[in-house]
Amino acid sequence: MTNTPLQERLNWRYATKKMDPSKTVPEDKVAQIVEAVQLAPTSSGTQPFELFVISNPEVRAEIRKVAWDQTPITDGSHLLVFAAWDNYSEARIDAVVADMTGARGEIPKLNAYYENLKQMYLPRDADVNFDHAARQAYIALGFAMMAAAELEVDCTPMEGFEPDKVDDILGLKERGLRSVVILPLGYREAGADWLLPMKKVRKPLAEMVTRVD
Amino acid sequence: MTNTPLQERLNWRYATKKMDPSKTVPEDKVAQIVEAVQLAPTSSGTQPFELFVISNPEVRAEIRKVAWDQTPITDGSHLLVFAAWDNYSEARIDAVVADMTGARGEIPKLNAYYENLKQMYLPRDADVNFDHAARQAYIALGFAMMAAAELEVDCTPMEGFEPDKVDDILGLKERGLRSVVILPLGYREAGADWLLPMKKVRKPLAEMVTRVD
Repeated sequence: MTNTPLQERLNWRYATKKMDPSKTVPEDKVAQIVEAVQLAPTSSGTQPFELFVISNPEVRAEIRKVAWDQTPITDGSHLLVFAAWDNYSEARIDAVVADMTGARGEIPKLNAYYENLKQMYLPRDADVNFDHAARQAYIALGFAMMAAAELEVDCTPMEGFEPDKVDDILGLKERGLRSVVILPLGYREAGADWLLPMKKVRKPLAEMVTRVD
Repeated sequence: MTNTPLQERLNWRYATKKMDPSKTVPEDKVAQIVEAVQLAPTSSGTQPFELFVISNPEVRAEIRKVAWDQTPITDGSHLLVFAAWDNYSEARIDAVVADMTGARGEIPKLNAYYENLKQMYLPRDADVNFDHAARQAYIALGFAMMAAAELEVDCTPMEGFEPDKVDDILGLKERGLRSVVILPLGYREAGADWLLPMKKVRKPLAEMVTRVD
Protein backbone atom coordinates (compact mmCIF):
# COMPACT_ATOMS: atom_id res chain seq x y z
CA MET A 1 0.00 0.00 0.00
CA THR A 2 1.49 3.34 -0.97
CA ASN A 3 1.14 6.34 1.27
CA THR A 4 -0.83 9.37 0.19
CA PRO A 5 1.09 12.68 -0.05
CA LEU A 6 -0.68 13.73 3.16
CA GLN A 7 0.50 10.62 5.03
CA GLU A 8 4.05 11.07 3.72
CA ARG A 9 4.10 14.60 5.06
CA LEU A 10 2.53 13.77 8.43
CA ASN A 11 5.11 11.05 8.97
CA TRP A 12 8.04 13.10 7.64
CA ARG A 13 7.55 15.88 10.16
CA TYR A 14 8.66 15.53 13.77
CA ALA A 15 9.58 17.90 16.60
CA THR A 16 13.13 18.47 15.44
CA LYS A 17 15.51 18.43 18.41
CA LYS A 18 18.71 19.27 16.54
CA MET A 19 18.78 21.68 13.64
CA ASP A 20 21.68 22.31 11.28
CA PRO A 21 22.99 25.83 12.04
CA SER A 22 24.57 26.11 8.57
CA LYS A 23 21.21 26.05 6.78
CA THR A 24 18.75 28.90 6.28
CA VAL A 25 15.10 28.63 5.37
CA PRO A 26 14.60 30.69 2.18
CA GLU A 27 12.44 33.76 2.62
CA ASP A 28 9.87 32.58 0.09
CA LYS A 29 9.20 29.51 2.23
CA VAL A 30 9.03 31.60 5.40
CA ALA A 31 6.50 33.81 3.59
CA GLN A 32 4.35 30.79 2.71
CA ILE A 33 4.38 29.57 6.31
CA VAL A 34 3.45 33.05 7.52
CA GLU A 35 0.64 33.14 4.96
CA ALA A 36 -0.72 29.86 6.36
CA VAL A 37 -0.85 31.57 9.76
CA GLN A 38 -2.60 34.58 8.24
CA LEU A 39 -5.19 32.42 6.45
CA ALA A 40 -5.87 30.05 9.35
CA PRO A 41 -9.46 30.39 10.56
CA THR A 42 -10.21 31.82 14.01
CA SER A 43 -13.29 32.11 16.16
CA SER A 44 -15.63 34.72 14.63
CA GLY A 45 -12.74 35.78 12.39
CA THR A 46 -11.15 37.88 15.14
CA GLN A 47 -7.56 36.65 14.55
CA PRO A 48 -6.81 37.47 18.19
CA PHE A 49 -3.05 37.11 18.06
CA GLU A 50 0.04 38.51 16.37
CA LEU A 51 3.03 36.72 14.92
CA PHE A 52 6.67 37.65 15.49
CA VAL A 53 9.14 36.37 12.90
CA ILE A 54 12.63 36.60 14.34
CA SER A 55 15.78 35.98 12.36
CA ASN A 56 17.96 38.26 14.53
CA PRO A 57 20.56 35.99 16.22
CA GLU A 58 20.97 38.10 19.38
CA VAL A 59 17.24 38.21 20.07
CA ARG A 60 17.00 34.46 19.52
CA ALA A 61 19.94 33.89 21.86
CA GLU A 62 18.12 35.93 24.53
CA ILE A 63 14.98 33.87 24.07
CA ARG A 64 16.93 30.60 24.19
CA LYS A 65 18.19 31.59 27.66
CA VAL A 66 14.62 31.69 28.98
CA ALA A 67 13.56 28.58 27.06
CA TRP A 68 15.45 25.77 28.76
CA ASP A 69 18.43 26.36 26.45
CA GLN A 70 16.74 24.54 23.57
CA THR A 71 19.15 24.67 20.64
CA PRO A 72 16.70 24.82 17.69
CA ILE A 73 15.91 28.40 18.74
CA THR A 74 19.36 29.48 17.57
CA ASP A 75 20.33 26.59 15.24
CA GLY A 76 17.24 27.22 13.13
CA SER A 77 17.19 30.33 10.95
CA HIS A 78 13.85 31.83 11.99
CA LEU A 79 11.80 31.77 15.17
CA LEU A 80 8.03 32.26 15.11
CA VAL A 81 6.47 33.60 18.31
CA PHE A 82 2.69 33.39 18.56
CA ALA A 83 1.46 36.16 20.87
CA ALA A 84 -2.22 36.19 21.80
CA TRP A 85 -4.30 39.19 22.82
CA ASP A 86 -4.22 39.58 26.61
CA ASN A 87 -7.96 40.32 26.48
CA TYR A 88 -10.78 41.14 24.11
CA SER A 89 -11.73 44.81 24.00
CA GLU A 90 -14.34 46.96 22.30
CA ALA A 91 -11.66 48.60 20.14
CA ARG A 92 -10.23 45.27 19.03
CA ILE A 93 -13.61 43.84 18.05
CA ASP A 94 -14.66 47.09 16.35
CA ALA A 95 -11.49 46.92 14.25
CA VAL A 96 -12.45 43.39 13.12
CA VAL A 97 -15.90 44.63 12.10
CA ALA A 98 -14.37 47.61 10.28
CA ASP A 99 -12.07 45.28 8.29
CA MET A 100 -15.03 43.07 7.35
CA THR A 101 -17.22 45.99 6.37
CA GLY A 102 -14.35 47.40 4.31
CA ALA A 103 -14.03 44.14 2.39
CA ARG A 104 -17.67 43.08 2.10
CA GLY A 105 -19.72 46.23 2.52
CA GLU A 106 -22.17 47.04 5.32
CA ILE A 107 -24.08 43.96 6.53
CA PRO A 108 -26.56 44.67 9.35
CA LYS A 109 -26.63 41.01 10.48
CA LEU A 110 -22.88 41.15 10.87
CA ASN A 111 -23.02 44.23 13.08
CA ALA A 112 -25.61 42.56 15.29
CA TYR A 113 -23.45 39.44 15.52
CA TYR A 114 -20.44 41.35 16.78
CA GLU A 115 -22.52 43.48 19.18
CA ASN A 116 -23.67 40.21 20.70
CA LEU A 117 -20.07 38.97 20.80
CA LYS A 118 -19.05 42.05 22.76
CA GLN A 119 -21.87 41.46 25.25
CA MET A 120 -20.49 37.97 25.76
CA TYR A 121 -16.72 38.61 25.76
CA LEU A 122 -16.22 42.00 27.39
CA PRO A 123 -17.62 41.18 30.86
CA ARG A 124 -15.49 38.03 31.15
CA ASP A 125 -12.23 37.80 33.10
CA ALA A 126 -9.17 38.76 31.06
CA ASP A 127 -7.73 35.28 31.67
CA VAL A 128 -10.77 33.56 30.15
CA ASN A 129 -10.49 35.76 27.08
CA PHE A 130 -6.73 35.27 26.83
CA ASP A 131 -7.20 31.49 27.00
CA HIS A 132 -9.77 31.71 24.23
CA ALA A 133 -7.43 33.84 22.10
CA ALA A 134 -4.55 31.43 22.78
CA ARG A 135 -6.60 28.52 21.43
CA GLN A 136 -7.04 30.37 18.15
CA ALA A 137 -3.28 30.82 17.95
CA TYR A 138 -2.95 27.05 18.28
CA ILE A 139 -5.07 26.53 15.17
CA ALA A 140 -2.64 28.79 13.32
CA LEU A 141 0.27 26.87 14.87
CA GLY A 142 -1.22 23.72 13.34
CA PHE A 143 -1.53 25.43 9.96
CA ALA A 144 2.08 26.65 10.18
CA MET A 145 3.39 23.15 10.95
CA MET A 146 1.39 21.58 8.12
CA ALA A 147 2.66 24.25 5.73
CA ALA A 148 6.25 23.73 6.90
CA ALA A 149 5.96 19.98 6.31
CA GLU A 150 4.64 20.56 2.81
CA LEU A 151 7.63 22.81 2.08
CA GLU A 152 10.04 20.31 3.70
CA VAL A 153 10.99 22.82 6.35
CA ASP A 154 11.53 21.46 9.85
CA CYS A 155 10.07 23.01 12.96
CA THR A 156 9.83 22.41 16.70
CA PRO A 157 6.72 23.48 18.57
CA MET A 158 7.70 24.66 22.07
CA GLU A 159 5.73 25.57 25.16
CA GLY A 160 8.84 25.17 27.32
CA PHE A 161 9.79 28.81 27.87
CA GLU A 162 9.10 31.53 30.43
CA PRO A 163 6.32 33.55 28.80
CA ASP A 164 6.81 36.64 30.99
CA LYS A 165 10.45 36.84 30.02
CA VAL A 166 9.77 36.37 26.31
CA ASP A 167 7.11 39.08 26.66
CA ASP A 168 9.76 41.38 28.15
CA ILE A 169 12.30 40.63 25.41
CA LEU A 170 9.80 41.43 22.66
CA GLY A 171 7.96 44.25 24.45
CA LEU A 172 4.65 42.41 24.27
CA LYS A 173 2.99 43.71 27.44
CA GLU A 174 2.86 47.28 26.15
CA ARG A 175 1.10 45.97 23.05
CA GLY A 176 -1.49 43.98 25.00
CA LEU A 177 -0.02 40.65 23.92
CA ARG A 178 1.21 37.52 25.70
CA SER A 179 3.45 34.87 24.16
CA VAL A 180 1.79 31.44 24.05
CA VAL A 181 3.89 29.15 21.89
CA ILE A 182 7.07 29.42 19.82
CA LEU A 183 8.17 27.60 16.68
CA PRO A 184 11.76 27.56 15.42
CA LEU A 185 12.07 26.91 11.67
CA GLY A 186 15.15 25.27 10.16
CA TYR A 187 16.51 21.98 8.91
CA ARG A 188 17.13 18.75 10.82
CA GLU A 189 20.74 17.74 11.35
CA ALA A 190 20.54 14.06 10.45
CA GLY A 191 22.93 11.99 12.55
CA ALA A 192 22.91 14.53 15.40
CA ASP A 193 19.26 14.38 16.43
CA TRP A 194 18.44 11.67 18.99
CA LEU A 195 14.74 11.83 18.18
CA LEU A 196 14.98 11.41 14.40
CA PRO A 197 15.71 7.64 14.36
CA MET A 198 13.09 6.92 17.00
CA LYS A 199 9.73 5.45 16.11
CA LYS A 200 6.90 8.00 16.08
CA VAL A 201 4.60 7.16 18.98
CA ARG A 202 0.89 7.83 18.68
CA LYS A 203 -2.14 6.36 20.37
CA PRO A 204 -3.76 3.63 18.31
CA LEU A 205 -6.99 4.72 16.63
CA ALA A 206 -8.90 2.17 18.72
CA GLU A 207 -7.92 4.10 21.87
CA MET A 208 -8.31 7.60 20.59
CA VAL A 209 -11.32 7.47 18.27
CA THR A 210 -14.94 6.57 19.02
CA ARG A 211 -17.27 6.05 16.08
CA VAL A 212 -20.96 6.79 16.51
CA ASP A 213 -22.60 5.35 13.39
CA MET B 1 1.89 35.05 -10.53
CA THR B 2 0.53 31.56 -10.05
CA ASN B 3 -0.49 30.35 -6.66
CA THR B 4 1.32 27.51 -4.94
CA PRO B 5 -0.75 24.39 -4.15
CA LEU B 6 -0.64 25.50 -0.50
CA GLN B 7 -2.08 28.92 -1.32
CA GLU B 8 -4.76 27.36 -3.53
CA ARG B 9 -5.84 25.16 -0.68
CA LEU B 10 -5.75 27.88 1.99
CA ASN B 11 -7.93 30.08 -0.18
CA TRP B 12 -10.25 27.28 -1.28
CA ARG B 13 -11.26 26.38 2.25
CA TYR B 14 -13.75 28.47 4.23
CA ALA B 15 -16.06 27.92 7.16
CA THR B 16 -18.85 26.34 5.13
CA LYS B 17 -22.22 27.66 6.25
CA LYS B 18 -24.41 25.52 3.99
CA MET B 19 -23.58 21.94 3.15
CA ASP B 20 -25.26 19.76 0.54
CA PRO B 21 -27.20 17.07 2.45
CA SER B 22 -27.21 14.75 -0.59
CA LYS B 23 -23.43 14.28 -0.50
CA THR B 24 -21.39 11.98 1.72
CA VAL B 25 -17.68 12.20 2.45
CA PRO B 26 -16.17 8.83 1.45
CA GLU B 27 -14.83 6.78 4.35
CA ASP B 28 -11.28 6.75 2.97
CA LYS B 29 -11.20 10.55 3.14
CA VAL B 30 -12.67 10.55 6.65
CA ALA B 31 -9.93 8.07 7.60
CA GLN B 32 -7.22 10.39 6.24
CA ILE B 33 -8.61 13.35 8.18
CA VAL B 34 -8.75 11.23 11.35
CA GLU B 35 -5.16 10.16 10.71
CA ALA B 36 -4.11 13.81 10.55
CA VAL B 37 -5.66 14.24 14.01
CA GLN B 38 -3.84 11.15 15.26
CA LEU B 39 -0.47 12.33 13.88
CA ALA B 40 -0.78 15.95 15.02
CA PRO B 41 1.88 16.81 17.60
CA THR B 42 0.90 17.57 21.19
CA SER B 43 2.72 18.91 24.24
CA SER B 44 5.11 16.22 25.52
CA GLY B 45 3.34 13.75 23.24
CA THR B 46 0.47 13.29 25.68
CA GLN B 47 -2.33 13.51 23.07
CA PRO B 48 -4.66 14.70 25.84
CA PHE B 49 -7.94 14.42 23.95
CA GLU B 50 -10.17 11.94 22.17
CA LEU B 51 -12.00 12.24 18.88
CA PHE B 52 -15.62 11.29 18.26
CA VAL B 53 -16.57 10.62 14.63
CA ILE B 54 -20.33 10.76 14.34
CA SER B 55 -22.23 9.79 11.23
CA ASN B 56 -25.41 8.77 13.11
CA PRO B 57 -28.15 11.22 12.01
CA GLU B 58 -30.13 11.12 15.26
CA VAL B 59 -27.12 11.89 17.42
CA ARG B 60 -26.14 14.74 15.10
CA ALA B 61 -29.71 16.08 15.23
CA GLU B 62 -29.49 16.06 19.05
CA ILE B 63 -26.20 17.96 18.93
CA ARG B 64 -27.55 20.48 16.43
CA LYS B 65 -30.30 21.35 18.94
CA VAL B 66 -27.67 22.47 21.48
CA ALA B 67 -25.50 24.16 18.85
CA TRP B 68 -27.54 27.16 17.76
CA ASP B 69 -29.30 25.01 15.15
CA GLN B 70 -26.33 25.21 12.77
CA THR B 71 -27.27 23.20 9.69
CA PRO B 72 -23.84 21.81 8.66
CA ILE B 73 -24.04 19.50 11.71
CA THR B 74 -26.78 17.51 9.98
CA ASP B 75 -26.29 18.52 6.31
CA GLY B 76 -22.71 17.27 6.43
CA SER B 77 -22.14 13.53 6.53
CA HIS B 78 -19.81 13.27 9.53
CA LEU B 79 -19.32 15.32 12.68
CA LEU B 80 -15.97 15.37 14.49
CA VAL B 81 -16.11 16.20 18.21
CA PHE B 82 -12.79 17.02 19.89
CA ALA B 83 -13.04 16.12 23.58
CA ALA B 84 -10.13 17.09 25.83
CA TRP B 85 -9.09 15.42 29.07
CA ASP B 86 -10.83 17.14 31.99
CA ASN B 87 -7.52 16.96 33.90
CA TYR B 88 -4.10 15.36 33.80
CA SER B 89 -3.68 12.38 36.12
CA GLU B 90 -0.93 10.03 37.15
CA ALA B 91 -2.62 7.14 35.33
CA ARG B 92 -2.99 9.13 32.12
CA ILE B 93 0.65 10.22 32.07
CA ASP B 94 1.87 6.76 33.03
CA ALA B 95 -0.06 5.34 30.07
CA VAL B 96 1.75 7.78 27.75
CA VAL B 97 5.12 6.65 29.14
CA ALA B 98 4.12 3.00 28.78
CA ASP B 99 3.22 3.55 25.10
CA MET B 100 6.56 5.26 24.47
CA THR B 101 8.54 2.61 26.27
CA GLY B 102 6.65 -0.06 24.33
CA ALA B 103 7.62 1.56 21.03
CA ARG B 104 11.14 2.76 21.80
CA GLY B 105 12.39 0.65 24.68
CA GLU B 106 13.26 1.80 28.19
CA ILE B 107 14.88 5.26 28.22
CA PRO B 108 15.82 6.52 31.72
CA LYS B 109 15.90 10.19 30.59
CA LEU B 110 12.35 9.81 29.35
CA ASN B 111 11.12 8.46 32.67
CA ALA B 112 12.74 11.38 34.48
CA TYR B 113 11.12 13.83 32.05
CA TYR B 114 7.64 12.51 32.71
CA GLU B 115 8.18 12.31 36.47
CA ASN B 116 9.01 16.00 36.30
CA LEU B 117 5.93 16.61 34.18
CA LYS B 118 3.76 14.97 36.83
CA GLN B 119 5.30 17.18 39.54
CA MET B 120 4.33 20.17 37.43
CA TYR B 121 0.87 19.16 36.18
CA LEU B 122 -0.73 17.15 38.97
CA PRO B 123 -0.83 19.89 41.65
CA ARG B 124 -2.44 22.39 39.24
CA ASP B 125 -6.16 23.18 39.15
CA ALA B 126 -8.16 20.88 36.89
CA ASP B 127 -9.26 23.92 34.85
CA VAL B 128 -5.66 24.92 34.11
CA ASN B 129 -4.91 21.40 32.94
CA PHE B 130 -8.10 21.18 30.90
CA ASP B 131 -7.26 24.47 29.18
CA HIS B 132 -3.81 23.14 28.36
CA ALA B 133 -5.28 19.91 26.98
CA ALA B 134 -7.83 21.90 24.96
CA ARG B 135 -5.04 23.85 23.27
CA GLN B 136 -3.50 20.61 22.08
CA ALA B 137 -6.85 19.62 20.58
CA TYR B 138 -6.79 22.90 18.63
CA ILE B 139 -3.49 21.92 16.98
CA ALA B 140 -5.20 18.72 15.84
CA LEU B 141 -8.20 20.77 14.71
CA GLY B 142 -5.81 22.77 12.52
CA PHE B 143 -4.33 19.56 11.11
CA ALA B 144 -7.82 18.18 10.40
CA MET B 145 -8.85 21.33 8.52
CA MET B 146 -5.64 21.38 6.46
CA ALA B 147 -6.11 17.69 5.63
CA ALA B 148 -9.75 18.27 4.67
CA ALA B 149 -8.76 21.11 2.34
CA GLU B 150 -6.16 18.90 0.67
CA LEU B 151 -8.84 16.26 0.09
CA GLU B 152 -11.35 18.88 -1.11
CA VAL B 153 -13.64 18.10 1.77
CA ASP B 154 -15.44 21.04 3.37
CA CYS B 155 -15.66 21.63 7.07
CA THR B 156 -16.95 24.18 9.55
CA PRO B 157 -15.08 24.72 12.84
CA MET B 158 -17.61 25.51 15.60
CA GLU B 159 -17.29 26.68 19.16
CA GLY B 160 -20.92 27.75 19.20
CA PHE B 161 -22.50 24.91 21.16
CA GLU B 162 -23.32 24.10 24.78
CA PRO B 163 -20.40 21.93 25.86
CA ASP B 164 -22.17 20.48 28.92
CA LYS B 165 -25.06 19.29 26.77
CA VAL B 166 -22.81 17.77 24.11
CA ASP B 167 -20.94 16.07 26.96
CA ASP B 168 -24.25 14.61 28.16
CA ILE B 169 -25.28 13.41 24.70
CA LEU B 170 -21.96 11.59 24.18
CA GLY B 171 -21.45 10.47 27.79
CA LEU B 172 -18.16 12.34 28.06
CA LYS B 173 -18.20 13.19 31.78
CA GLU B 174 -18.00 9.54 32.82
CA ARG B 175 -14.94 9.20 30.61
CA GLY B 176 -13.18 12.26 32.06
CA LEU B 177 -13.61 14.25 28.85
CA ARG B 178 -15.06 17.65 27.93
CA SER B 179 -16.05 18.72 24.41
CA VAL B 180 -14.05 21.73 23.19
CA VAL B 181 -14.71 22.18 19.50
CA ILE B 182 -16.73 20.42 16.80
CA LEU B 183 -16.14 20.09 13.06
CA PRO B 184 -18.81 18.96 10.60
CA LEU B 185 -17.43 17.43 7.38
CA GLY B 186 -19.31 17.57 4.11
CA TYR B 187 -19.57 19.43 0.84
CA ARG B 188 -20.50 23.07 0.22
CA GLU B 189 -23.82 23.73 -1.47
CA ALA B 190 -22.78 26.32 -4.03
CA GLY B 191 -25.54 28.87 -4.63
CA ALA B 192 -27.08 28.29 -1.19
CA ASP B 193 -24.22 29.46 1.05
CA TRP B 194 -24.21 33.21 1.77
CA LEU B 195 -20.55 33.13 2.84
CA LEU B 196 -19.13 31.40 -0.24
CA PRO B 197 -19.27 34.42 -2.62
CA MET B 198 -17.92 36.78 0.05
CA LYS B 199 -14.34 37.99 0.02
CA LYS B 200 -12.14 36.23 2.56
CA VAL B 201 -11.21 38.80 5.21
CA ARG B 202 -7.84 38.57 6.92
CA LYS B 203 -5.65 41.12 8.63
CA PRO B 204 -2.95 42.49 6.34
CA LEU B 205 0.50 41.09 7.10
CA ALA B 206 1.67 44.60 8.05
CA GLU B 207 -0.80 44.57 10.96
CA MET B 208 -0.36 41.01 12.08
CA VAL B 209 3.32 40.26 11.61
CA THR B 210 6.36 41.91 13.21
CA ARG B 211 9.77 41.06 11.76
CA VAL B 212 12.80 41.15 14.06
CA ASP B 213 15.79 40.88 11.71
